[in-house]
Amino acid sequence: MGVLNGKVAIVTGAQRRIWSGIARGLGAAGPQMARQQNLSNRRTRKQGNVTTEALYTNSALHAWKLIIARLDQMFSSMNDDELRREVAPGRNRIFYLMGHLTAVHDRLLPLLGLGERLHPELDDDFVTNADRVTADRVAPEAVRRAWSEVNARLTVAMAALPPEEWLKKHNAVSDEDFAKDPLRNRLSVLQTRTTHAGFHAGQIRLALTKG
Amino acid sequence: MGVLNGKVAIVTGAQRRIWSGIARGLGAAGPQMARQQNLSNRRTRKQGNVTTEALYTNSALHAWKLIIARLDQMFSSMNDDELRREVAPGRNRIFYLMGHLTAVHDRLLPLLGLGERLHPELDDDFVTNADRVTADRVAPEAVRRAWSEVNARLTVAMAALPPEEWLKKHNAVSDEDFAKDPLRNRLSVLQTRTTHAGFHAGQIRLALTKG
Repeated sequence: MGVLNGKVAIVTGAQRRIWSGIARGLGAAGPQMARQQNLSNRRTRKQGNVTTEALYTNSALHAWKLIIARLDQMFSSMNDDELRREVAPGRNRIFYLMGHLTAVHDRLLPLLGLGERLHPELDDDFVTNADRVTADRVAPEAVRRAWSEVNARLTVAMAALPPEEWLKKHNAVSDEDFAKDPLRNRLSVLQTRTTHAGFHAGQIRLALTKG
Repeated sequence: MGVLNGKVAIVTGAQRRIWSGIARGLGAAGPQMARQQNLSNRRTRKQGNVTTEALYTNSALHAWKLIIARLDQMFSSMNDDELRREVAPGRNRIFYLMGHLTAVHDRLLPLLGLGERLHPELDDDFVTNADRVTADRVAPEAVRRAWSEVNARLTVAMAALPPEEWLKKHNAVSDEDFAKDPLRNRLSVLQTRTTHAGFHAGQIRLALTKG
């Protein structure tokens, strides 16, 4: 087990290369993350006992940023031809998963009340339909740009959300259902989407020949 | 997008089967999770403004339980022969990943200050060494039992941890380093391990022929 820039990482014979990228990702994102956390602490300290609350939500944001950085690194290590590889024989192409993750993250903007979607045009190819059901109508370069744009927008908007806002309901649940189950909040959405990103990152990793 | 037993799930043409298992997993775990949450709220309410804090940590625990339930479901859908399949050609066997996840989760017990490890004997085959470097010295049935035992122990111990304890340092960081970065806390460890479990769940999913 190794300690990588502030996080305990699982470093094993078999898994070393898989997770080592996270350290590099964090290395790049580290100073920015520290700044965002300071800002968040400054803002919330004025409101009383919410500095502690910011630690809870910053931990969740940190886990989100780690997996986004890992995916960033994997996508940028591949050219467009490599992007068209299947993660396993007969399974989704990396290109499809990149578009899928972009569209799912784009949907987080309205779902978390952070703004309008940036790329609803991705849904048809990458959410509604399975891989290769439609022809590729969006070029890899455009999907790469959308991936970066959506995650950058999300990261800024999420960092600006005060801790208590994370405990409010997300926009796909009714007031009545939220009253019955307060875990149907924005924070839970962020956390299940972090797992979802990890799920597909694990698959994409299998198709990497380098790294 | 569909709402599954209290959580927003991403349900798409391509991904429906992948995530539908989460709903079934939650279905089984639901009543237990509700009980644990009620207990946690009762306990912490006495301490002042910590009911809100319990919502932050319960959200993280919820995400953890979802991915454990998903893995439980995948492992129990396979017989021992199926467990020996590779997740992709030349990659880890599901059996190895089951042992790896069990050992990594077992390590969470001392790392989070929740007790002694239950199965340190798994490290050599499933953490220190890559798949198939050593002969299989632990039978699939024993790894299945250890997987269930470790996660059951962890889930109970984590549910009993008061919210403020989650913000304390984990046991692999020094006081000095923790003072510099308060995100090196137990909650961050839980969240990165949730992503890690999702990472390998995505890989295991590729080798499933049913479900």
